[in-house]
Amino acid sequence: VKQSPLGAGGEFDLIRRILAGAGTGPTEPWLQSQIRAGPGDDCAVIRDGIAVSVDMSVEDVHFRRDWLEPSEIGYRSAAAALSDLAAMAARPIGILAALAVPRREADLAAGIMEGVAAAAHDSGAALLGGDLSRSPDRVVLDVVALGHAPNPVMRSGARPGHSIWVTGSLGGAAAAVAAWEQGRSPSAAARQAFARPTPRVAEAAWLRERGVLHALIDLSDGLAGDASHLAAASDVGILLDTALVPVHPAAAEGHPAAALRLALHGGEDYELCLAAPAGAIEALAEQFRQTFQLPLTRVGSVIRGSGVALRAPGGSVAPAGAGGFDHFDGSEP
Amino acid sequence: VKQSPLGAGGEFDLIRRILAGAGTGPTEPWLQSQIRAGPGDDCAVIRDGIAVSVDMSVEDVHFRRDWLEPSEIGYRSAAAALSDLAAMAARPIGILAALAVPRREADLAAGIMEGVAAAAHDSGAALLGGDLSRSPDRVVLDVVALGHAPNPVMRSGARPGHSIWVTGSLGGAAAAVAAWEQGRSPSAAARQAFARPTPRVAEAAWLRERGVLHALIDLSDGLAGDASHLAAASDVGILLDTALVPVHPAAAEGHPAAALRLALHGGEDYELCLAAPAGAIEALAEQFRQTFQLPLTRVGSVIRGSGVALRAPGGSVAPAGAGGFDHFDGSEP
Repeated sequence: VKQSPLGAGGEFDLIRRILAGAGTGPTEPWLQSQIRAGPGDDCAVIRDGIAVSVDMSVEDVHFRRDWLEPSEIGYRSAAAALSDLAAMAARPIGILAALAVPRREADLAAGIMEGVAAAAHDSGAALLGGDLSRSPDRVVLDVVALGHAPNPVMRSGARPGHSIWVTGSLGGAAAAVAAWEQGRSPSAAARQAFARPTPRVAEAAWLRERGVLHALIDLSDGLAGDASHLAAASDVGILLDTALVPVHPAAAEGHPAAALRLALHGGEDYELCLAAPAGAIEALAEQFRQTFQLPLTRVGSVIRGSGVALRAPGGSVAPAGAGGFDHFDGSEP
Repeated sequence: VKQSPLGAGGEFDLIRRILAGAGTGPTEPWLQSQIRAGPGDDCAVIRDGIAVSVDMSVEDVHFRRDWLEPSEIGYRSAAAALSDLAAMAARPIGILAALAVPRREADLAAGIMEGVAAAAHDSGAALLGGDLSRSPDRVVLDVVALGHAPNPVMRSGARPGHSIWVTGSLGGAAAAVAAWEQGRSPSAAARQAFARPTPRVAEAAWLRERGVLHALIDLSDGLAGDASHLAAASDVGILLDTALVPVHPAAAEGHPAAALRLALHGGEDYELCLAAPAGAIEALAEQFRQTFQLPLTRVGSVIRGSGVALRAPGGSVAPAGAGGFDHFDGSEP
């Protein structure tokens, strides 16, 4: 449930207004009582904390069939939806998948559904249902993830003085896409990052239990883009120290500036970005790393203001700008 | 959450096995406690009765852009998902919509989302979120409907001796499609039936409150096809009296045999089909008709056996056969 891919320009303002109008919420009392979070966060949340997210993957936009095995198409789509649950610190319950494939592609459909089922299993979710229909040509897969978040962590809780942390390392998935687009084969590590990302469900639960998560988002659009969503939802600014950003080994193979660009703007890492009171995470970080065999890295801080700024090693500060994946920014073919 | 479009042949058996395997349910106790209904009914149901359905509409498969206004594309897709809630006698809470449109189609996207919002409003549901992405060419719209069904009515409760009833009249949407496919303009009534179907949410709630709903399904694939799903889920047979089937006026304009075919096999009427003890509905039917200005018609009965049989006016009985919309039956272009 992201509004980020709506584009930065004015042309999708009407859709923004429709969704924002929904965000003001219904006036009917029973319906009001059913809704805890509407549009604008990673998941909608209803009733006693049912978190729901939907994630659409369209062939030739989100993946290409010559890049991935069918099971990987299913796995990464389901992982993306499950990552939205992680971004609310929700416990996964189940997955529903709607799949459209061309005629006579039964093996393709079965492979995709096997990948969806594997991703659900790996995150402790059940496969609750599927809807299969025909597509004239391209594969379309839509995954709905349902979880339980009695105390959902929203994007809106970041406050000036908080620190910004990220799990894992960034830019691996984007390195794989860059390799494919240049006609090369990505490294095994980059391919794995793109094809079988791990939703950080257990990591989010671990951090939530320790009371340190004040704001949370998953990294689907790239650190710079997703940090800007967190900043906007919290009405604050975020200052990222570029020297601190943990670059994925697969993204670090080229020029350092290119590596940083992949890590900041690459997207689809499905790591977590969180805001926590200064000093709150430091005491837990080593235990986190040992428990999950995963980095947990402070990358910046929350400041008064708005937007995301980057501080270079020399100390100069500049706006992060765009550069994340925007479905309608006009820069793609 | 339908398994019906998987096709009757053997080629989608693997997908059936994946979904059926999910149907046996998880073994982890917490997860077991969260799931009340998995694959195989109109909605999945979790926790305290949260019903969830997902419905995908693909351009040139489920609709054509030269048939419908953008708002109608959105309205009918959302209505189809809300109809799945009606089919469990669930009260709608909210809608999430994932939409993919080609570049520079902002008006199209806005129109579709306005239609989704209108359908949600008309059924008393909130718009909880949206996900917009780019499609290379065709419009794809996926609607997730969430409702509350503390006592969901399943497909599996039909018993020999029950009567089968349907709301409304059947074949109107199929009459519109038939007209378009023959290069004609459908009548206003047929067009309305296809473009702006009414999910029978209030009607299902009214009947559930009166305790007469033992099994329930909505008519998306056509009466013959959906009755066969109800029969299979209940492990019974269903005998339909063709003379009793309420044919939509728009479907009744041609040859009587063609009209009956549209009503039995046309699909996308989004009326309800229910099983109730013999004699239970008769006392309520007139009040139902006055309350909703909608027919409620007995069309047959539940028998021992399996499948759906048709009884012609002369008394001869024959299997209903296929003839519903099957995405992979090989008979379409």
